[in-house]
Amino acid sequence: MKTENRTADFYDIIRSRRSVRTYDSSAKMTEGELKEILEEAMLAPSGTNLNPWRFMVFTDPAEKAKLFPIAFGQQQVVDASAIIVVLGDMNAYTVENANRINQRAVDAGYMTDEVKDIINNGVENYYGSANEQTKKEWQMLDGGLLAMQFMLAAKARGYDTIPMLGYSIEQFRNEFNVPENLVNILMIAVGKASGPAYPTVRLGVDEVTTWNGVV
Amino acid sequence: MKTENRTADFYDIIRSRRSVRTYDSSAKMTEGELKEILEEAMLAPSGTNLNPWRFMVFTDPAEKAKLFPIAFGQQQVVDASAIIVVLGDMNAYTVENANRINQRAVDAGYMTDEVKDIINNGVENYYGSANEQTKKEWQMLDGGLLAMQFMLAAKARGYDTIPMLGYSIEQFRNEFNVPENLVNILMIAVGKASGPAYPTVRLGVDEVTTWNGVV
Repeated sequence: MKTENRTADFYDIIRSRRSVRTYDSSAKMTEGELKEILEEAMLAPSGTNLNPWRFMVFTDPAEKAKLFPIAFGQQQVVDASAIIVVLGDMNAYTVENANRINQRAVDAGYMTDEVKDIINNGVENYYGSANEQTKKEWQMLDGGLLAMQFMLAAKARGYDTIPMLGYSIEQFRNEFNVPENLVNILMIAVGKASGPAYPTVRLGVDEVTTWNGVV
Repeated sequence: MKTENRTADFYDIIRSRRSVRTYDSSAKMTEGELKEILEEAMLAPSGTNLNPWRFMVFTDPAEKAKLFPIAFGQQQVVDASAIIVVLGDMNAYTVENANRINQRAVDAGYMTDEVKDIINNGVENYYGSANEQTKKEWQMLDGGLLAMQFMLAAKARGYDTIPMLGYSIEQFRNEFNVPENLVNILMIAVGKASGPAYPTVRLGVDEVTTWNGVV
């Protein structure tokens, strides 16, 4: 599962990654390969290292076909090798989840019991007093961190991606009986491009940046 | 400003990037270097390529000192070479902004006028009918995509980072007179680490992933 023997140039990846809408429907990705990319994506940071990310991965053509109307007929949900629906677990923002993760850090020798207790208490105070809307926003931020690293890790292996918000969350949740505690963040289609990606422009850094307190 | 002559191994970067809390306060980063990293970060995708990101960058010790109480006394806001406050422009979700960006794509030969008009109309319909809370969530997602790529681009140059939500948004906005249309997403401290980062654990992919519609 580790990637120590792989190499890929970071600058090539960030400059060649583009959102791709057309995929080779005959290209398959194995479960093992998708797990490796997800494992690399999960090296992303998250608030208080609570790892709120949850994934529903679709590779079966019959299941991807169900996503087609839910994603308003966007062909990539059928043709891409996999669709990753990134969800956030609102129960991740609890002392129980903090303890689950931090106990493993203690067991690995990365953290003392004293630090674990301090972090767990902090989670209880900080997340316990936050409202649901604020927590939803934190989920979106943590999901964005994860999604970016996923798309780069996929590109490092020669796969293209597109991040998607254009689908009916309500229809998705109904179709797949998504539990209440999981919130929808985004979908990512991943696979082998069958056509060129469109180049895009960006605003210039000087247009969007101010220095030392000037607004 | 371009980075074609640089190389850095993607897998080394994602496996060595960790949140660092202690920085060498004598280490400086130039404005040019920070702009390059921001330019690389802005290669991230954003919803409908609307580039909602805005940055307030702090490098001046006197200005960073103002952040110290706002960030509840966290030493890294003073010691890190720069603090990047990532904001989102709610006015980015307008047809005016879409047209500003897409006209440049037309001028560059990347897009036809017809496609520009279709996208601009889509922005008017899609974003025009969204409520402020939903737009805020999209800002957090786009900000997360940006922040992840920023942290990796910094690491590629040997800098460490930490993403920060632990500061008073209200105090920050008051101190620096942040306009109403800009929402706070996160802060990123960036600089030269002066001590080791703590290793951390992650949940396993199998603990957080289901396949083909099972929840």
